Amino acid sequence: MQITQALKRAAAARPGALATVCGGRRRTFAQVAQRVARLAGALHGLGVQADDRVGILSLNSDRYIETYLAVPWAGAAINPVNTRWSAAEIAYSLADCDTRVLLVDDPFMHMLPELRKRCASLRTLVHVGNGATPQGLLSYEALITATQPVADATLGGRDLAGVFYTGGTTGFPKGVMLSHDALVYNALVFAAQGVARDREVGLHVAPLFHMAGVALLNTLWTVGGTHVTMPAFEPLAALQALERERIATTVMVPTMIQLLVDHPQCAGFDLAMLRRIGYGGSPISDALLERAALRLPQVEFAQVYGMTELAPVATQLGPELHAPEGRARGKTVSAGQAVLGVDLRVVDPEGHPLPPGVVGEVIVRSPGAMLGYWGKPEETAKALQRAPNEGWMHTGDAGRLDEEGFLTIVDRVKDMIVTGGENVYSVEVEQVVARHRAVAACAVIGVPDDDWGERVHAVVQLKPGAQADADAIRAHCKTLIGGYKCPRSVEFVAALPVSGAGKVLKTQLRELHWAGCMRRVA
Amino acid sequence: MQITQALKRAAAARPGALATVCGGRRRTFAQVAQRVARLAGALHGLGVQADDRVGILSLNSDRYIETYLAVPWAGAAINPVNTRWSAAEIAYSLADCDTRVLLVDDPFMHMLPELRKRCASLRTLVHVGNGATPQGLLSYEALITATQPVADATLGGRDLAGVFYTGGTTGFPKGVMLSHDALVYNALVFAAQGVARDREVGLHVAPLFHMAGVALLNTLWTVGGTHVTMPAFEPLAALQALERERIATTVMVPTMIQLLVDHPQCAGFDLAMLRRIGYGGSPISDALLERAALRLPQVEFAQVYGMTELAPVATQLGPELHAPEGRARGKTVSAGQAVLGVDLRVVDPEGHPLPPGVVGEVIVRSPGAMLGYWGKPEETAKALQRAPNEGWMHTGDAGRLDEEGFLTIVDRVKDMIVTGGENVYSVEVEQVVARHRAVAACAVIGVPDDDWGERVHAVVQLKPGAQADADAIRAHCKTLIGGYKCPRSVEFVAALPVSGAGKVLKTQLRELHWAGCMRRVA
Repeated sequence: MQITQALKRAAAARPGALATVCGGRRRTFAQVAQRVARLAGALHGLGVQADDRVGILSLNSDRYIETYLAVPWAGAAINPVNTRWSAAEIAYSLADCDTRVLLVDDPFMHMLPELRKRCASLRTLVHVGNGATPQGLLSYEALITATQPVADATLGGRDLAGVFYTGGTTGFPKGVMLSHDALVYNALVFAAQGVARDREVGLHVAPLFHMAGVALLNTLWTVGGTHVTMPAFEPLAALQALERERIATTVMVPTMIQLLVDHPQCAGFDLAMLRRIGYGGSPISDALLERAALRLPQVEFAQVYGMTELAPVATQLGPELHAPEGRARGKTVSAGQAVLGVDLRVVDPEGHPLPPGVVGEVIVRSPGAMLGYWGKPEETAKALQRAPNEGWMHTGDAGRLDEEGFLTIVDRVKDMIVTGGENVYSVEVEQVVARHRAVAACAVIGVPDDDWGERVHAVVQLKPGAQADADAIRAHCKTLIGGYKCPRSVEFVAALPVSGAGKVLKTQLRELHWAGCMRRVA
Repeated sequence: MQITQALKRAAAARPGALATVCGGRRRTFAQVAQRVARLAGALHGLGVQADDRVGILSLNSDRYIETYLAVPWAGAAINPVNTRWSAAEIAYSLADCDTRVLLVDDPFMHMLPELRKRCASLRTLVHVGNGATPQGLLSYEALITATQPVADATLGGRDLAGVFYTGGTTGFPKGVMLSHDALVYNALVFAAQGVARDREVGLHVAPLFHMAGVALLNTLWTVGGTHVTMPAFEPLAALQALERERIATTVMVPTMIQLLVDHPQCAGFDLAMLRRIGYGGSPISDALLERAALRLPQVEFAQVYGMTELAPVATQLGPELHAPEGRARGKTVSAGQAVLGVDLRVVDPEGHPLPPGVVGEVIVRSPGAMLGYWGKPEETAKALQRAPNEGWMHTGDAGRLDEEGFLTIVDRVKDMIVTGGENVYSVEVEQVVARHRAVAACAVIGVPDDDWGERVHAVVQLKPGAQADADAIRAHCKTLIGGYKCPRSVEFVAALPVSGAGKVLKTQLRELHWAGCMRRVA
């Protein structure tokens, strides 16, 4: 299987159909195929050879999508750079996998001096933005215009398709090596499970450097759909795009869904064409789901749990369990069931399977599993070759399976709160806090406490104009969960810090409290 | 990947949803899962062990579907028997792969004495029909009632899922060994390409022993859909079932589509829920497609070309090329493009790739390719390990690719007509004959001719009440194709002979003409 095949299929079957929309630019499948073949030729002209890496540091755009396909078309592997990282982190990742050609978008020009300084391997810079081409960079459009199309290198199977650096907030970034098979398998599963249907229009609002974006990208190609890109998430612009482009499907994180649904102008838009939203990063609160059902009654929600190392999917919680009837079964706190082709286990520290209901490490066997971490054989072995479960990806997440095979992620192993000897799983408390009518979003973390070791601490973002104090939040929680789980302290913020993927950056929240402390290992 | 996973997913996610409909019997996913686990236990009780084969000789039913899953659940491989075969052929196939337990439906009871006589390995017979259980057979329902459920054996990956005997009309039947991976890959591709969508209702009218039936079976499981079974194809009963069960998707052969569309009562049924028909076995004529568009304007058609050895899909011709606009591109005579994951080549007798437009043997590389032929290592090597294309399935079909990657099957290599030194491909002539307004269906074959070596001969089935003679058919053809391609003789029949899969039995038509002749090798 090869990730360029779907483009070739679409260009042959429906050459005149709309492939990409980026602001005012609209291109057909035939045009995109032609541009991809020319861009691949241009990459050859820049010295890119088989097995090289080509980086892209850009907001979402049609050119990002073209680059995604032109790089494997040229026989190389893509390195999509995390746009939220510092120049130091980016330089590290580029140097780590020896990326010599980098495509750069306008908002990142200021980083170039530092990238050049820190990353000696960086040789050629291509300007992929909309503005004038800055000094010292090559023009993306000029390269395409000046180059003849070349034939697809037809990489595929277990060949390397891309190196995706994980947005880990601790330690050095790791380059996750994903094969063509892993990416196409994921796209087939997503398409088969209805994340996108044949020839639908999809909105790329999750960043394309992130697996959430990549998954929708490959899935839309698989079903021959149309790609609409947004440079970054902004609720009003997203609402406008959803209406204007008659979007049928998108992938978001719960924070984005919350911002859409709670937007004061949401009800003013005609979003009748929107049929489904896939989300990941965390479960969705029932409270948000209820508000979403009011605003977007025709939309089906599906949760995906996964990680970059799985390209990315492990489990899915289908629409039927988000609908009111299915919601009564209480599965929305879970991440759903193993998707087709995935085997799932919850194991103890020795790697032995645990019975239903017992929390342990989640391990996954999947056709989507990574080839390994770039240049890190020891970490690869630790993730993929740990006895007695060789070949299983050790996720580092703590979870439990129920009798019906639904997986609940209780927390990153390292993030579980241990307070007074009791284990408290942030996600459970977050679900409860989110149900308070004044709460827009929240994060629950463990903070150091002289009495309890760790204390359950809630960071809360209120809805615009809404009011609540710590006592009100605590009182609300005590009606729903055991006292030891309720936040002992509550902090109110204007907005929660989020990662490039829209995931709440708990590490950042924790740092304020743990500075100078030894973080206990749960 | 494992074919039982989708059942377990559906039973956990939507236990109360409708899984199977067979006449008056309606069962939920939870019920089917329970029955499958019990039937697997019963098979163990009958001595079925890991790696055994279990046969089923039955018309389509809910029990057929349960058996399909219970056999791998018990750790064994299914052997679905061709119901159109003679007792001698069936006995050969059962003995060939050492099938000891056979489930038998009512219409096949008369074969049992001969099967027992010719197949010494046959040990246990289970009655899977609706009538009273005959003497000497075990009752399917009694076995399920009397047995406790067992855990899934969790076969998967490259483990053998089934042995599917090819309905070849020449030589000894060959048992095609298909893995779990091959079947699930096919189901994912079909689901991704929209043969069935999430939670749709599908009609099993193609026989479940045939890959067309198997493909829809696995695809519907993949999308969590509802299975409606019909014991055999009959146009009026099919129309009734389509309306009554609100069928959204089905898989047929063009002959069946023709019988539905041309049925005098077709317009009287409410088929608004029917959204798509997948078909295979041969291309569809534009004339039939036009009639279908009038009767079923909301239905999308997709053609699949494949073979049992590919489990089965190689190419697909999507709905966009069947619709009037796409039809203008003239691709409906083709079998479409390689599906995702499939590589396609047309090669000369030495195995070297041929340029577009040139006819040669079609070879296919696919994750769906068979493990091999049961007990026939030489034929396996010939099909899968032929230099210089080791690992490619050599289909034995003659075809050509166009510049856009669309494959046209011109004929089985052995079936091409050579007349006066010119190659004539039946399919092209059939398309033309079918466009005559009096023609319901037709088959074009080569018959012996003193002048021409072979003569192009058309066998024609007229529409009810319509009239046409040989001269009229020839005159019609001469306006559309070169004279040497036009039928030199025309024969009118009440109905074309069709195989169990609804494919026109050209071998049978030819026999009438070639008896006593040496068939020339094209």
